[in-house]
Amino acid sequence: MGFKSGARGGRLKRAMDPLAEAMNASIEFDRRLAHFDIRGSIAHAQMLEEVGVLDSEEVAAICDGLKTIGHEIAKGNFPLDPALEDIHMNIEDRLIKRIGTPGMRLHTARSRNDQVATDLKLYALHSAKKLIQLLRVLRKSFVTKAQKYKKGMIPGYTHLQRAQPVTIGHHLLAYEAMFHRDQRRLQTYIERVSRSPLGAGALATTTFNIDRTSTAKKLGFRHVMKNSMDAVSDRDFVLDLLHCVTTVGIHLSRLGEELVLWTSKEFQFASIGPAYCSTSSIMPQKANADIAELLRGKVGRLIGSWVAVATVCKGLPLAYNKDLQETQEPMFDAVETSLQCVEVAAKMVSSLKFHVENTEAAVTNSYALATELADYLAQKGVPFREAHHAVGALVHWASTQNRKLNSLKLTELRKFHDAFARDVFPWIDAEVSINRRNNVGGPAIKQISLQLRELKKELTDVPTL
Amino acid sequence: MGFKSGARGGRLKRAMDPLAEAMNASIEFDRRLAHFDIRGSIAHAQMLEEVGVLDSEEVAAICDGLKTIGHEIAKGNFPLDPALEDIHMNIEDRLIKRIGTPGMRLHTARSRNDQVATDLKLYALHSAKKLIQLLRVLRKSFVTKAQKYKKGMIPGYTHLQRAQPVTIGHHLLAYEAMFHRDQRRLQTYIERVSRSPLGAGALATTTFNIDRTSTAKKLGFRHVMKNSMDAVSDRDFVLDLLHCVTTVGIHLSRLGEELVLWTSKEFQFASIGPAYCSTSSIMPQKANADIAELLRGKVGRLIGSWVAVATVCKGLPLAYNKDLQETQEPMFDAVETSLQCVEVAAKMVSSLKFHVENTEAAVTNSYALATELADYLAQKGVPFREAHHAVGALVHWASTQNRKLNSLKLTELRKFHDAFARDVFPWIDAEVSINRRNNVGGPAIKQISLQLRELKKELTDVPTL
Amino acid sequence: MGFKSGARGGRLKRAMDPLAEAMNASIEFDRRLAHFDIRGSIAHAQMLEEVGVLDSEEVAAICDGLKTIGHEIAKGNFPLDPALEDIHMNIEDRLIKRIGTPGMRLHTARSRNDQVATDLKLYALHSAKKLIQLLRVLRKSFVTKAQKYKKGMIPGYTHLQRAQPVTIGHHLLAYEAMFHRDQRRLQTYIERVSRSPLGAGALATTTFNIDRTSTAKKLGFRHVMKNSMDAVSDRDFVLDLLHCVTTVGIHLSRLGEELVLWTSKEFQFASIGPAYCSTSSIMPQKANADIAELLRGKVGRLIGSWVAVATVCKGLPLAYNKDLQETQEPMFDAVETSLQCVEVAAKMVSSLKFHVENTEAAVTNSYALATELADYLAQKGVPFREAHHAVGALVHWASTQNRKLNSLKLTELRKFHDAFARDVFPWIDAEVSINRRNNVGGPAIKQISLQLRELKKELTDVPTL
Amino acid sequence: MGFKSGARGGRLKRAMDPLAEAMNASIEFDRRLAHFDIRGSIAHAQMLEEVGVLDSEEVAAICDGLKTIGHEIAKGNFPLDPALEDIHMNIEDRLIKRIGTPGMRLHTARSRNDQVATDLKLYALHSAKKLIQLLRVLRKSFVTKAQKYKKGMIPGYTHLQRAQPVTIGHHLLAYEAMFHRDQRRLQTYIERVSRSPLGAGALATTTFNIDRTSTAKKLGFRHVMKNSMDAVSDRDFVLDLLHCVTTVGIHLSRLGEELVLWTSKEFQFASIGPAYCSTSSIMPQKANADIAELLRGKVGRLIGSWVAVATVCKGLPLAYNKDLQETQEPMFDAVETSLQCVEVAAKMVSSLKFHVENTEAAVTNSYALATELADYLAQKGVPFREAHHAVGALVHWASTQNRKLNSLKLTELRKFHDAFARDVFPWIDAEVSINRRNNVGGPAIKQISLQLRELKKELTDVPTL
Repeated sequence: MGFKSGARGGRLKRAMDPLAEAMNASIEFDRRLAHFDIRGSIAHAQMLEEVGVLDSEEVAAICDGLKTIGHEIAKGNFPLDPALEDIHMNIEDRLIKRIGTPGMRLHTARSRNDQVATDLKLYALHSAKKLIQLLRVLRKSFVTKAQKYKKGMIPGYTHLQRAQPVTIGHHLLAYEAMFHRDQRRLQTYIERVSRSPLGAGALATTTFNIDRTSTAKKLGFRHVMKNSMDAVSDRDFVLDLLHCVTTVGIHLSRLGEELVLWTSKEFQFASIGPAYCSTSSIMPQKANADIAELLRGKVGRLIGSWVAVATVCKGLPLAYNKDLQETQEPMFDAVETSLQCVEVAAKMVSSLKFHVENTEAAVTNSYALATELADYLAQKGVPFREAHHAVGALVHWASTQNRKLNSLKLTELRKFHDAFARDVFPWIDAEVSINRRNNVGGPAIKQISLQLRELKKELTDVPTL
Repeated sequence: MGFKSGARGGRLKRAMDPLAEAMNASIEFDRRLAHFDIRGSIAHAQMLEEVGVLDSEEVAAICDGLKTIGHEIAKGNFPLDPALEDIHMNIEDRLIKRIGTPGMRLHTARSRNDQVATDLKLYALHSAKKLIQLLRVLRKSFVTKAQKYKKGMIPGYTHLQRAQPVTIGHHLLAYEAMFHRDQRRLQTYIERVSRSPLGAGALATTTFNIDRTSTAKKLGFRHVMKNSMDAVSDRDFVLDLLHCVTTVGIHLSRLGEELVLWTSKEFQFASIGPAYCSTSSIMPQKANADIAELLRGKVGRLIGSWVAVATVCKGLPLAYNKDLQETQEPMFDAVETSLQCVEVAAKMVSSLKFHVENTEAAVTNSYALATELADYLAQKGVPFREAHHAVGALVHWASTQNRKLNSLKLTELRKFHDAFARDVFPWIDAEVSINRRNNVGGPAIKQISLQLRELKKELTDVPTL
Repeated sequence: MGFKSGARGGRLKRAMDPLAEAMNASIEFDRRLAHFDIRGSIAHAQMLEEVGVLDSEEVAAICDGLKTIGHEIAKGNFPLDPALEDIHMNIEDRLIKRIGTPGMRLHTARSRNDQVATDLKLYALHSAKKLIQLLRVLRKSFVTKAQKYKKGMIPGYTHLQRAQPVTIGHHLLAYEAMFHRDQRRLQTYIERVSRSPLGAGALATTTFNIDRTSTAKKLGFRHVMKNSMDAVSDRDFVLDLLHCVTTVGIHLSRLGEELVLWTSKEFQFASIGPAYCSTSSIMPQKANADIAELLRGKVGRLIGSWVAVATVCKGLPLAYNKDLQETQEPMFDAVETSLQCVEVAAKMVSSLKFHVENTEAAVTNSYALATELADYLAQKGVPFREAHHAVGALVHWASTQNRKLNSLKLTELRKFHDAFARDVFPWIDAEVSINRRNNVGGPAIKQISLQLRELKKELTDVPTL
Repeated sequence: MGFKSGARGGRLKRAMDPLAEAMNASIEFDRRLAHFDIRGSIAHAQMLEEVGVLDSEEVAAICDGLKTIGHEIAKGNFPLDPALEDIHMNIEDRLIKRIGTPGMRLHTARSRNDQVATDLKLYALHSAKKLIQLLRVLRKSFVTKAQKYKKGMIPGYTHLQRAQPVTIGHHLLAYEAMFHRDQRRLQTYIERVSRSPLGAGALATTTFNIDRTSTAKKLGFRHVMKNSMDAVSDRDFVLDLLHCVTTVGIHLSRLGEELVLWTSKEFQFASIGPAYCSTSSIMPQKANADIAELLRGKVGRLIGSWVAVATVCKGLPLAYNKDLQETQEPMFDAVETSLQCVEVAAKMVSSLKFHVENTEAAVTNSYALATELADYLAQKGVPFREAHHAVGALVHWASTQNRKLNSLKLTELRKFHDAFARDVFPWIDAEVSINRRNNVGGPAIKQISLQLRELKKELTDVPTL
């Protein structure tokens, strides 16, 4: 089992309908696996030498041949032959042409099924690591920007209504927290799925006495998959990865939405660097946040990819079924999309300029400090629900009078609750209010400074954009 | 709105980050729109002549130029320039280079927004028509095969348990019915979405006095979209099409599953032509139904595409947003996937051979005729629930004795209900039973013949594969 | 096939694990089908009389009994017995208890499989009609509101940047157009799926000579489904309906997003009636647009329902499989969600108040009229690309000088292109500009008035909220 | 932010449209949070005492009151009031009625936003732990069954074609491996998301000096969430959990498919215990695998739930938005579905009986040992591709002659390759072949025994069903 007809010039091959062949072939997309296929084959060959199936000369020839092919591919000098269906046969065919008989021995004690599973998993793990690196760059860009706007006040929103004042630094670190979580998710992913399928054969390992632990170690896997039928039919690691990139995509979509809002005429909270905007020759004031919109939109294909893979795997009997080929393209597309998005987001965030005069005007120009009054009363011993009620009435009256909170006199305040006293006034100062929220995770400058210090330390090896 | 910066060498352009530019560009996939873009531009130019905005010489130059470009593209002689971002700018740029000033007039009274919406819709409608043609080919292949196996008996299954005997013809026509429904769905789709967005401009039509009805007519649209803001931001027609191809995909997945079952060693009900199988050099008896498995698996990406587009459109404010660019690739992929799958399915179905000796053995070798006994009693006036109960006990007894139904004697039957009489025996003959189910939609040869006659008539213009 | 064990006190029943039984049962959700089940049974019984299987007395007893049960259910006097698993057995059991033997005859020539398919389809068609009615109410609320704000100017946006001025009426009619399209989609849905599965039996019709056309007619179906195996295993009509409600949901999510934006402090374009807002006791100025947010969010479950049903149907062999039970709950939830959302949206839209002073200030306070200048030049014969370029430079200069377009002098304009003349000034008046866009679908008052007249006529029977 | 209007009899409340109110309310589903809400409130109150905001008497009253309410709820004695919208207000209202003023102090330094996030996370973590327990029960049922059928041979399939012989034990342990992986995924989930949002307030913590670490510890969280805006708007933990239950669901769907196949007449490999089947009174031989089909189908709603939540979260600006309420029902449904499915699957697997005479006949009755011949040649030094080719020709010839592999003579074998010698014959014995596959993860009895020993040890605390 294992080898596809097209790969071997078998009896049925000649008769294969070109349409069917085109549908069956994967070379158009699995070329991304070339590097991992070569790594896997080298590990397999070395192990075969260790267990005495191949001799050292053969293995040397195989490894040299594969490395040379790897260089050819890297340089773009390896013309892929669609007639050989997939990247695995292309490489093997090339190897045999190059080194002869030892090349024909390479596939001993291996099947296409465990080979493909291994290549895909190496690709997935490699991609996860790359994504972590880029997430760290992205986090650093938030940290750098948060440092710059640590003290700039901005309304914190709920329901897109101004709710309570925070700082721009605090707001930006909310994104750092999201992408940090994404990073942790990917890290546990890497640890969890680091289990080698190599040696599982078509579905039942092999009659050769192989050493799966050795190939696993050579390829950087922490463990060996414990059941060979599971090993060739498992694609959980694809779905897991798609889940990980989807959460990244969701966070980017939230960022995209906020950037679109902030750069609108109505908000005018920030500008994106021109390198990340498009404009219209006719309306130069229009700096369309195209890239931000694409960040918001591209989560669609990530979600779609997860769905595609989940649907493909649903209801398949054991072990390998051809349907599983359909898990590859969604993974490739989602990985490439997410890497691209995170990288461009990092640079776009670096290019952000906040218009602090506008964000601060938005803070003072609102009743965002009303909560403080209730907290003031509560701290004086007024039951919270009673405090709430009094302040509700107070703010309602103020808004109908078009009075800002910080313009009210004590006598006016006391009409709504007689626990109000002279010491209330500092409470209605936005900056004071922010700094009073000096709890872990809060917007107070102290908290932000503390976090920034830790984050800069953790991200010290990441170059600033 | 309007023109992208990259397209015009505007002030911001030079500063655009190559990463952002790559993300922004669509030329890699929207090249599929070239033909429709040219059609749309010709219609637009001709209309501009009609309303007096362009003169006949200009329009002649434009139309000739566009047609030549169309030929270049068809022949593969048109090198696309990625710096020009999309297919629309590539064509316009080429036109201007070729014919000069009139080329610069073409875009009068038009915006990229309505242009793209028009191109996409023309593509969608064209694809729907193509898919209908292929569905008719597929239906014909079922009809031809059903004709051949009109009388061959096969168990009808529920819960994958043999339930009641039907004919292979009847079973195959169930698929004809599904794909017929898909065809009708596409037909109403075409009629319903045949409304032209052209002339909607960026979002508010144009200050030129244009004739949207004229361009609509020229492009084969039945109506003009009634609100210009809706016209540029509507992508329902993409989602509708993706829904249509998904139901096709679901039906193909059911077919794929059945083909996998039927060609298994356990069923041995049918063989797929070697042109649609792959094998293994080592196990030539293994005719892996790879193509059937891919039919089953590929519905994953169709479902995923629908999800991607739905998610992209969710929550977008009016009118055009860049996110909408993300609706294109899922549509292209889903259209191409479904066309490929339907075409190959038609040929694979044509290649099917049923092993009637096995399907008929499966019928007689079961208690699939038990229902007939209950119906027999019911027709004698026994209340249905009572009849059911008696036959339940009878069959239970028979199965423990390992006796086939048609081996039972009248005295044995009468132990379970005394309404059994000599005239019961024809009821337990599978062929008789099938032909007694002579109701509309039933398996009786008469019904199948009737349907085949009608279907062959309807599909008379479709060449037999 | 046919009857579930639990339904009949069969031999296996006693042994059924309560956990399994709970999983198997559907009575918790399929009670929604009660009314349709009764209608279907009455039609079936009457047909059985027509073809001579039941006599008129029996049928009279059955129909009377079923109607009484229908009244009991309507009044809430029908205690459902979970031990009877589903609504169909609950009703049949009740009927038998009430009228005896004729009740036992009802199920003659019918199976649970075609019965359930029929009930579900009747429910789906009924729901589609209900949704159309509510969509017409919603459209009317947009029409009424558009009438009121026919002339109020508002910026038309692309990329959430002010692009070109339109009227509030024009903007609101974009939503009318979306929901009109949804209505048409549902109408073609109803026509297309109006095909009766009744009489398909378990999968192969029945040995009784029944009249499927008669039951179809009685139940309001236009056609009979042509293949009985397809008839019992088809759930396309569920997926189609979920697609229809999803597009409604997407449109509502766009509306929700815009309402959230419009009612933000930054936009202040509109207020939602207090009956559709929530507030906070402490910040009475906060009128949170909770309902608008829910409209935006609820599309999630609609999309999820479509996915659930598509996944369930994927890869199922013919004919009926128990998996299909899993198509019911997503349909019920999606139908109820969409009906609720459309109804509440209609009322919320009716409650909208626009702050025209703000929307108009936003128009004049922008370069949204820049396109007009390019159009002006183009109409003077300047090639469009050249006109674009000149105006681009002009507006860029004006914005750096902080000059509004309508403050510019002719000499200033002519610095950028000498085709500018005195007649340019009316072009930079927003109202004039809007009314110049007097093309089909455009924002000009004339066009809006025309459309409103037609729409009011079409919706004349819909009561204004 | 903060409190819903309906909860406090505020000014807008009276005017709220009942339709809108119904849509807004969550009491129908968030009642599942009651227990966690009480736990969270107790921890919050105790912390308020620690930091000196409440005194010990107040806190004692609060904690006693809450515990009493907890008992009432557990006993079903707590009538929920829909007018109070959600479970949180119901409990708080009840508390105030019961203990007066201290009850009004409970909400000090807390907001509905962090309260809800905390309750949901506690629910999610609790559910994950419960699911792990049930997965261990399920794994044990596979282990027990694998022990029983350790030696029974069965064909291993690829593409649903018999490929290579394995043992039933080996096949069953493939499922153990899947669910083990699910368990590990949930374990890393629990560790990763164990971060407390409590104290994040509405979005900016609170002006009170609280101790978030203390409440986190009391509630069993390992960490405190580091950014308060992220803390109230993060629902990653919901999506993560839905991903975890989806992979469980996919594995169950594969099991469901195989059970349906195995219990079909065509396979007859196994029988499911009657407690997990339904039958038909008329066809007692029909043991429909309804529960297996439901396991296969129910993954649809799990996938749908993930999609729903991902879509809801897409594109939301910070911080809390009402849309997030829509993440609750999908989570509740998915959690309850997966718990139910895993529990019933464990019992159904325990009830399985394999028909070893049939599975073994299927092994010998096939060319599943052909690979061994190629391996034999390869071990003699024949290059693998050459060995493959020779055996391909041999098996092809044998199949056309209708000869089983183990009936071939040496002279016949040597026609295809002269490396065949007398020692080839043990290679074509299925049992020998299986035991030669004595590699980690392979089907050899030794390997299976080894694994079973380890697994039994690990699962020693799980009671056998």
